[in-house]
Amino acid sequence: MSDPSTPARNETGLAVAAGILKQRFGDRFQTGTAIREQHGHTTTHIPNQPPDAVVFASSTEDVATVVRVCADQGVPVIPYGTGTSLEGQLNAPSGGISIDLSRMDRILAVHAADLDCVIEPGVTREALNSHLRDQGLFFPIDPGANASLGGMAATRASGTNAVRYGTMKDNVLSLEAVMPDGRIITTASRAKKTSAGYDLTRLLVGAEGTLGVITGLTLKLHGIPEAISAATCSFSDIRSACEAVITTIQMGIPVARIEFLDETMIRAVNSYSKLSLPVTPLLLLEFHGTEASVAEQAEAFGEIAADHNGTGFHWTANTEERNRLWKARHDAYFASLTIRPGARPYVTDVCVPISRLADCVTETQREIETLDLPTTIVGHVGDGNFHVSPMVDMSNADEIRRTEAFIGRLNERAIAMGGTCTGEHGIGQGKIPYLRGELGDSVDFMIIIKNALDPKGIMNPGKIFLP
Amino acid sequence: MSDPSTPARNETGLAVAAGILKQRFGDRFQTGTAIREQHGHTTTHIPNQPPDAVVFASSTEDVATVVRVCADQGVPVIPYGTGTSLEGQLNAPSGGISIDLSRMDRILAVHAADLDCVIEPGVTREALNSHLRDQGLFFPIDPGANASLGGMAATRASGTNAVRYGTMKDNVLSLEAVMPDGRIITTASRAKKTSAGYDLTRLLVGAEGTLGVITGLTLKLHGIPEAISAATCSFSDIRSACEAVITTIQMGIPVARIEFLDETMIRAVNSYSKLSLPVTPLLLLEFHGTEASVAEQAEAFGEIAADHNGTGFHWTANTEERNRLWKARHDAYFASLTIRPGARPYVTDVCVPISRLADCVTETQREIETLDLPTTIVGHVGDGNFHVSPMVDMSNADEIRRTEAFIGRLNERAIAMGGTCTGEHGIGQGKIPYLRGELGDSVDFMIIIKNALDPKGIMNPGKIFLP
Repeated sequence: MSDPSTPARNETGLAVAAGILKQRFGDRFQTGTAIREQHGHTTTHIPNQPPDAVVFASSTEDVATVVRVCADQGVPVIPYGTGTSLEGQLNAPSGGISIDLSRMDRILAVHAADLDCVIEPGVTREALNSHLRDQGLFFPIDPGANASLGGMAATRASGTNAVRYGTMKDNVLSLEAVMPDGRIITTASRAKKTSAGYDLTRLLVGAEGTLGVITGLTLKLHGIPEAISAATCSFSDIRSACEAVITTIQMGIPVARIEFLDETMIRAVNSYSKLSLPVTPLLLLEFHGTEASVAEQAEAFGEIAADHNGTGFHWTANTEERNRLWKARHDAYFASLTIRPGARPYVTDVCVPISRLADCVTETQREIETLDLPTTIVGHVGDGNFHVSPMVDMSNADEIRRTEAFIGRLNERAIAMGGTCTGEHGIGQGKIPYLRGELGDSVDFMIIIKNALDPKGIMNPGKIFLP
Repeated sequence: MSDPSTPARNETGLAVAAGILKQRFGDRFQTGTAIREQHGHTTTHIPNQPPDAVVFASSTEDVATVVRVCADQGVPVIPYGTGTSLEGQLNAPSGGISIDLSRMDRILAVHAADLDCVIEPGVTREALNSHLRDQGLFFPIDPGANASLGGMAATRASGTNAVRYGTMKDNVLSLEAVMPDGRIITTASRAKKTSAGYDLTRLLVGAEGTLGVITGLTLKLHGIPEAISAATCSFSDIRSACEAVITTIQMGIPVARIEFLDETMIRAVNSYSKLSLPVTPLLLLEFHGTEASVAEQAEAFGEIAADHNGTGFHWTANTEERNRLWKARHDAYFASLTIRPGARPYVTDVCVPISRLADCVTETQREIETLDLPTTIVGHVGDGNFHVSPMVDMSNADEIRRTEAFIGRLNERAIAMGGTCTGEHGIGQGKIPYLRGELGDSVDFMIIIKNALDPKGIMNPGKIFLP
């Protein structure tokens, strides 16, 4: 894909800012090529556009210092967590300073009675859950990658558990952020609900670092369920699988995860994770609750699946077996990389109303046949969200052209069906061409907000919309 | 309380706008005193400040017309739903045009498979639920009053079900809105989740009409539970009741409602609703699920309550008995009005982390003794949210002064405990003095957004913050 944004580099400002930050941060200011490239985009086909320098922040005050220096010099600021975003959110198309927040990884407080915690933005999902386990608590949002929670908030991440626990927007109580003028704000109290003024928390969640740098999070926690069970069921086609999901959700079965894997993905997972799942559309589920309720939920789903010609329904409360299945699901991204060694994944995601999911996936599968490249589909089907990953030989211009056209049509199809061009990866650079087609004049009001809060345009420029 | 906002009236603009709108809307443009007063604030002690005229809108295009005329003339626009807001949101301190949206009451679509619906803003909560019942669906947010859903979104309403189903922010998928320049936008698709750009949906939810007029809503729906049970339990003190609630939530019991009533409120409810509840702190609960699960939930709560010296625990799956109890809870506002006939309620609400709820209620009760006015406390205790309503003789300046000081200290106490000055009533006019104490410099960024989106300051001025 072509570079979506080429505002001019501010060479003088970049040089002055680098000088000041080098003096201020010493060894925590780095300009080596490898470090800079690692702080640009690395996960998908989107080209790497490294920042000019990386500052390793240790505190909110460090972040405020960098933002103030960059504001003075009119230089871009790009926040960095673990580098796992998928739509080019970390790239520096006009250069700038990457603020690496991974050293801000302290868990500042766990309020067990309130089911919340206060953390720094570099804490990863897995680190937080390891810390919480002894207290019988967990944080449910699980995008697969061991992402930083600041990054997950910035991209409004979700993943497999969203059907029950929501996305980051539903699980952040409050944020601390450094705003574009260097001021530090706290967007909300620790109260579970509030109607006090504009919801700045949810304005920053999903803003992809374009309105401020998240430097602290207060997150909702949940008690680890007394019991967890998993189930799998095969279906003759995607439509039957979707109808089973719709009935399950309509009946109010509080399923915790409900994932769809297509045949290509099943083949990849079987090979990568040494499984022998039947090579047919599969639903993989998880239920949380008491011993009695997870059994009741699994059995109720089994009956629904049978009504929709599901076969091979199997459920288990055995932890080892469950973990093996879900490990395979989590490794699906890596499994999909193996189906065409040397190729790059064009990872993309869309989300549609669940009533249109079967249509959307079926039409997409038909187009995959024409595209004729190894391509997996995996979906958070309870939300109508699915991922499509054609594996592309990046030296073959024709493959790239065909894939970009295929992805363009996929996004337009999802939007035409009342859905969104991105369920959980954000807009970044990759989805800019589709945002206005989805939201029309709303985008103008987003830009008004952007320009008002960040008049110098320094916060992660070239993302979400072009300046 | 004194008028919090007195920007000057734009007499010329008001006269010109009235002339244009009269011509445009005919009988749907009204200036009678009774109608104007009814469209100002009427529910609490806050003085009535009527608009100059009321336009009864029939369509989004009508709303856009009014907004464009008012924008041209620099005249305030105040959206009106059912008039049930509690903090002065409907007042017109600088005059202006009230847009009555109650005739925009069509349910445009119910998508049962997707568990959503598309409605006009004047549809009330009860009308929507009546319409949905045959399809086995319901909309859970229940602030007590039969409010319009547009108004509920504008004030980020919640109520008794929020502990399980969240607040309006969690149950609005997308909004249609007329922005301050008269343009009509749709903030999001119908997809269950999205990461497409800034969350304008949640920026408008809770903005109290200060950023735009909500003219359409896409709402999440839920399946009516297979079974519902209710329970009551008395406690010797608020602390024991709160500890029982904390344990219940930590254990992940998915309680649908969990309400606290203090002794004064119990006395009022017993008298008003002909009940004979024991006059001691009471928890009133509701459980949603399958037959088996509501029984399991109620029994689990019963054990927890016993551990915290709860007495008289009683649960029922009988619909009639359950409805009688919850009717009493819903009538609590009216019951509280009877405890001092002729007096006006100073209704206020705060919300604190649940670990501080017992402290906050206990200190407040101690102050009520000093205040020495009939005062009820009722709380959505699962969220840490409670309402305090001193009944005040509005002809007695000393009572008013003491009550305002009492409410000031209550708000400051909640904020000092990590909570908010308003859990679900919004800021309106009444809570303006406390917002900055709670959110500090965040308020500056709200004002930047307000001024950028509404540069003429016409959208519901004098609410949330002073210009």
